[in-house]
Order: sequence, then C-alpha cells, then structure tokens
Amino acid sequence: MQACGLIVEYNPFHNGHVYHIQASREASGADCLIAVMSGSFLQRGEPAIIDKFHRAKAALSAGVDIVLELPYLYAVQSSDLFARGSVHTLNAVGVSSICFGSESGNISHFTKSYDIFKQEQSVYKTTLHEKLNQGLAFPEASRLAYQSIGLTTSEMNLAKPNNILGFSYVKTILDHKLPIDPLTITRTKSGYHDKRITDSIASATSIRNELIKEQSISDTADSALPEVTVNQLKAYQQQAALWHSWEHYFNLLHYRVMTMSQEELADIHGVDEGLEYRIKKSAQDVSSFHEWMNSIKTKRYTWTRLQRIFTHVLTNTKKTDADYIKNASSVPYVRLLGMTKTGQKYLNSCKKEMDVPLISSIIGITNPTLSIEEKASRAYYSILPAQKKKPFHHQELQPPVMV
Amino acid sequence: MQACGLIVEYNPFHNGHVYHIQASREASGADCLIAVMSGSFLQRGEPAIIDKFHRAKAALSAGVDIVLELPYLYAVQSSDLFARGSVHTLNAVGVSSICFGSESGNISHFTKSYDIFKQEQSVYKTTLHEKLNQGLAFPEASRLAYQSIGLTTSEMNLAKPNNILGFSYVKTILDHKLPIDPLTITRTKSGYHDKRITDSIASATSIRNELIKEQSISDTADSALPEVTVNQLKAYQQQAALWHSWEHYFNLLHYRVMTMSQEELADIHGVDEGLEYRIKKSAQDVSSFHEWMNSIKTKRYTWTRLQRIFTHVLTNTKKTDADYIKNASSVPYVRLLGMTKTGQKYLNSCKKEMDVPLISSIIGITNPTLSIEEKASRAYYSILPAQKKKPFHHQELQPPVMV
Repeated sequence: MQACGLIVEYNPFHNGHVYHIQASREASGADCLIAVMSGSFLQRGEPAIIDKFHRAKAALSAGVDIVLELPYLYAVQSSDLFARGSVHTLNAVGVSSICFGSESGNISHFTKSYDIFKQEQSVYKTTLHEKLNQGLAFPEASRLAYQSIGLTTSEMNLAKPNNILGFSYVKTILDHKLPIDPLTITRTKSGYHDKRITDSIASATSIRNELIKEQSISDTADSALPEVTVNQLKAYQQQAALWHSWEHYFNLLHYRVMTMSQEELADIHGVDEGLEYRIKKSAQDVSSFHEWMNSIKTKRYTWTRLQRIFTHVLTNTKKTDADYIKNASSVPYVRLLGMTKTGQKYLNSCKKEMDVPLISSIIGITNPTLSIEEKASRAYYSILPAQKKKPFHHQELQPPVMV
Repeated sequence: MQACGLIVEYNPFHNGHVYHIQASREASGADCLIAVMSGSFLQRGEPAIIDKFHRAKAALSAGVDIVLELPYLYAVQSSDLFARGSVHTLNAVGVSSICFGSESGNISHFTKSYDIFKQEQSVYKTTLHEKLNQGLAFPEASRLAYQSIGLTTSEMNLAKPNNILGFSYVKTILDHKLPIDPLTITRTKSGYHDKRITDSIASATSIRNELIKEQSISDTADSALPEVTVNQLKAYQQQAALWHSWEHYFNLLHYRVMTMSQEELADIHGVDEGLEYRIKKSAQDVSSFHEWMNSIKTKRYTWTRLQRIFTHVLTNTKKTDADYIKNASSVPYVRLLGMTKTGQKYLNSCKKEMDVPLISSIIGITNPTLSIEEKASRAYYSILPAQKKKPFHHQELQPPVMV
C-alpha cells in the first residue's frame, strides 16, 4: 500500500478540502490518504472552532483515511517549524508523497527554487537580518529576502501564503533527504474548475467569522460547507454549547497575565525583546481580546505572532518547553486521532517499521511533549462549564475515532 | 489623641462588630479606633463576600475611625503570622492598646498564660513536633501541646478559636516588647448582654452561607445585620452582580492547576510534602470547588489549610514571595483604605513619627509586597465580566474612602 500525506488544519473542513483530497488521490495514485492536522490550537495562534475529534470525523467521512495530530509545539509556530513537524510526522508513518495546495501549482518551480535558495542562502540570510534589524516583522523581512534572490517572480512567488508554506515542506523534505515525493495542486481561485468550490474557498474565512460571530449555521454557511462539516459543527455545539474563539478566552488570559510577574511572562515561549512589559502594561485597561491585540500590535509584532504568543501564555508553554523540539530531527511520537478501515490496514502494515511510538490512547503515557499536549487541551476546554468539560477530557483518553 | 486597635475581617460587618467597637471604646478610653482588616482574601483562605472598600465603609459608618489593610502575605496565614502582621501594622500607627474578643474575656489570664508558655516552651515544642510527626493537623497538634503545659483549662482554654488568636496577639506584643496594652472583651454568647447581638453572632456564619447561596438578602439576614452592612452588600451587588464565594473561582483555579507543571505547583506557598501530586491528580475529575476540597482533605490537611493553599494557587503566591515576611520585624508599609474626620486628624498627628510608609494611593508605587497585593486584588475581581472589573481596579488606585 502507498500513502500520500496532507498537511491541514480543517478549521473547519470545507469544500476546498474535499477538492484537495480528490486531487491528491489522483496526483499521487496512493491507496491511503494521511492527514496531519493541528490539534486544539492553530498555526496562526487561535483556538480551533471545534475540537480535533469532530474535525477529524468530518475529514474521515469525506475521504481521508488517517488523521494524525500535529504536536502543539510544532502546530503553533512559524511556517518553518510547522513544516518540520508536519513533514516528519508524515515521514514517520512512511508516506511516499506529500501533496499540498499552492498558488503556483507547479512542483518543479518549488524544487528549482530550492536549488536557487541553497546557492544564494547567504544573500537571503544577510538581507533577512538587515530587514529584521530595521524593525520589520518576519514575514515582510522574509519576503524581501526572497526578493533579493529572485524568488518573488510570477513563476515562483514566495510572497504568497500557500507558496511559502509549500516551500517550507519542500525544504524540509530535501534538506533531510527524506524518501518523499513533494506534489502540489493549484490553490488559487482560478485553478479550480468547480464554481461551488471556488466560491466556498473564497468565502472560507468569512464563513468562519460568521460562524463564530453568530454561533449558528446561516444559510450561506450551510450551502458553502460540506454536509459532514455541518453535522460535526452541530454535534460539537450540542455538546459544548459554543464554537471556540479568542474572545471566549479573554477572561482566563487576562487573569493569567494579571497574576504573573514580568519575569514569569518573559519565560513564556515567544515573549522576547521586552514584550512582557508591553503585555503587562496594556493589560491594565483592556476589556476584550480584540482591544488587547490592537493595543500591542506594532510593525514588528504582527497579529499572528502576537496571537501565537498569547496562545503560549494561555497554555503556559515555556521557552524551556520549546527546547524539546529545537534540534530534534524527528517527532517524539505520532498520535492517531482517527482512521477508516483502509487507514487501519495501512497502519498495521507500517507500524512495525516505525522509528517513533504510534500512540492511539494517551492513558498512562508520560512524556514531556505529551504533557504539553495535555496542558494545551485542558486550556482549550477550560472555557466550558465544569460539567460539560468532562466528556471532552474523557474523549482525549479514548482510542482513536473509527469512521 | 490616643488610639485603640482592632484586628478584624468584617465578612461581613455584623452586630457583634458593632458591640466590639462600643466595648473597645469603653475599655480603652481611646479617642480613635483603628481597624486592621484583611483585604480581598481572608485568614481561612476564602474570598471576602464583598470587596474591602465596601466592608471598610460599613465599619466607618458604624464607629471605626480608620481602616487599614492587612497585607495579603499576613492575612492568608495561620494565626501566628496573621497576628504578627496585624499587631505590627497597628504598632506602626502608634496605637496605645489593642482590644480583641475572646472566649476568656480576662486579659490577666492571657498574660499569665504567656509567662507559663515562656517557661514551658520546650515542652510545648517537643509535644507539637511529636504530634505533627504522628500526622495530626497543626491546630490539633497545637491544642495537645498547649494541653501538655496546662493551657487548656477552664480558666485559659487555648482550644477555643478566639482565645488562640488573642493569645497570638498577646505573644506578639510581649515578644517584641511593644508599647501596647492588650485588652480583651468576652466573645462567647453568654458574655453579651444584648439578645439581638447574641443571636446575630450565633448566626453570623449561617447568614453568610445564606447570602452566598441565595445571592440575595433574606428577611433573617436583613434583621440580623446592621443597616450599614445591608446597604453595602446591596451597593456591591449592584456594581458587581454577585457576592464572592469559592465556587465562583472554581473554573479559574482548575484552569490554573491544569496548565501548571507539578514543579510549578510545588513552588506555590504552602504546597509541601508532595501535596502537588494530590492536587494535580484530584483535579482530573472534579467539577466543583467543594468536590475538589473533599477529594484532597485528610487528617493532616484541614479544610482551612487547603483553602489557604488554593488561595495562593489562585493568586500565584510563591514560596519566594512568602520569604519577604519570614524574618521581618515590622510591616513593609501601612495601607490606608478609609477614614473619618477623627481618623484623619489622628493620622496627621502621628504620620511624621511613623517608621514605615503610610500609603493612601498605590499609584506609581513599586514594591515587591505591593505587587503581591495587586495580584491578589486582580485575582479577586477576575470572576467579574470585563466591563464590570474596570471601576473596581480604578478604585484600587483612588485615595482612601472618607466617611
């Protein structure tokens, strides 16, 4: 059996993802599709709208065979670490290929860009540091550094978000000489043939915002999302009475910051350059998450970077915690969230050859990165009333979801 | 002008306190009554039902001239440290006497007991350690140690709660040779002449429980509490929409514990002897504060001791924070919460001779113990919705209440 890997967040699973599944199956010719998915918190530093199990179920119902959880320490990170964790997780379960969506849609442009990047790495680095020293945020500094080595042309534009992520995947595969074929499918609006998909991708962000704001499924959302997602959104809401957003966490986050010393805040992963003062000071007088973010945001501190930092504050993730993955050349474990019969068959065939443990239930396992995972998941559910939390914590200890 | 000191919590201010004020004025002959009062959290490790400013206002309206705040590090402690902080605060503002309620009601019995205690200190200590080593809780071990030196007789029974506290005050005064006369008034039911006061003291605890449970003033409470208290209870509830109890804090406390490592929990003041394991383990499956307490309580860990520990977890008070007061022979500052005209006159006359700063507004003051105070007050208000918190934090920065 051959497997193809997908790197996803499914927040929520939408029609574009259905297309990604179909196109990946076609492009790779694989019998088994394995998605590595962010857990409770997402790459841009936000709580997922519904929990990982409901998101996994939607994906499994729509054609994915296995869903693995990307460890928190890799998930809530900039693209390089996010890519490293995702690719290594997929490598650990022996995928032959990884298929990602990109604006480019042409894999040879990625591999060519990799060669250029390797040759011009010193120019890239010099420009990057120069721009960071000028006070630019990392994404902007990196864009200008890519520009300085000719990687923001129309053929391969590393200013586009999905190209950037895809390039990180390709870099990880080639840097570590992993036996994985990178594949890509077009992710721009015009690249899709189906009008319904086009529209739904374009509106994914606005639908997510609408879901969070209204806390109910509007007609627009209902028609733009696959039925599997609508079902899982409804099921989760019935159990938890809400869909998660940062504003739900404002009180906890504010309480936490107000009862931390500046020294403790400075120990949190991502809190650098005296940011602890800005966070403490601004906390005095804010009454919503949005207001707080706006009062700290600067050119250097982008919205996303600050959200990631606040996620680490909420989950109490320390600089010393992040050290676990700093120089790791593989992931500490692979955690299975759910699978189909096909997925199960694939895992049975590959698990003997795996170099890292495959975890299907976290009961009784003690491991420093798993305890970070537990803190993140506890923080995620902490906004629910005491009685509602219980079944979700129970779920964390259960065997994987079978669809 | 001469001042007499009272050591109080006013949770809430009740008819027994009115009597305490009248009797203290009579017994001391002082022109000015100064109360040192616990702030947001009380000696037995509970949030005060209403904030310190509303409690101070009730007391000022009923005959107290000055209300000072007992620093958190002394307030949420066993009786010896509570006494030390209270007596030193009153000494810092030059009181001539301190008048406390006790079951005994006879000050010469306290001073005689002090002499016995000094002579028999080694026997007391040996018995105390022996009993603690047998796994008894401190209060019970201490009671048996007092018994071993004959201090639990009918004349001076150091098994009674108010005698224990009073004896701590007397010990502090005499140990430090402070120029303060200890005075005491009877605090047992039969010691009061007024039937109304007797009843209201007897029912103070049940009324407090009723207030918290019903979150409204019943007819019983209305008739048992002085009007000044009813007014302040109503005023606070109108602003905050609740009266504080531990159950309101369960979610925050649980979130905190679930996102702390065992090592961090072991750094919290009062978490000793591996209690961090018990707290973490029990947290897995509880859904109320009461349930949590019951699941940890043992013979050694009394309800009160555990509540104090949970208060330190909630406010993030470390063992290193408690070091500030460990060997201190005076308080770091005296914080003024409110006063009458008489109180103001007294303070004007004494403040030049004070050895520690008199703080009437905490704006712009940085001091390690004040920052602990701020954390405690932030934690106290953290259960209120964002918009309701603001005026209370604002109040913390204002000049003292004038009545």
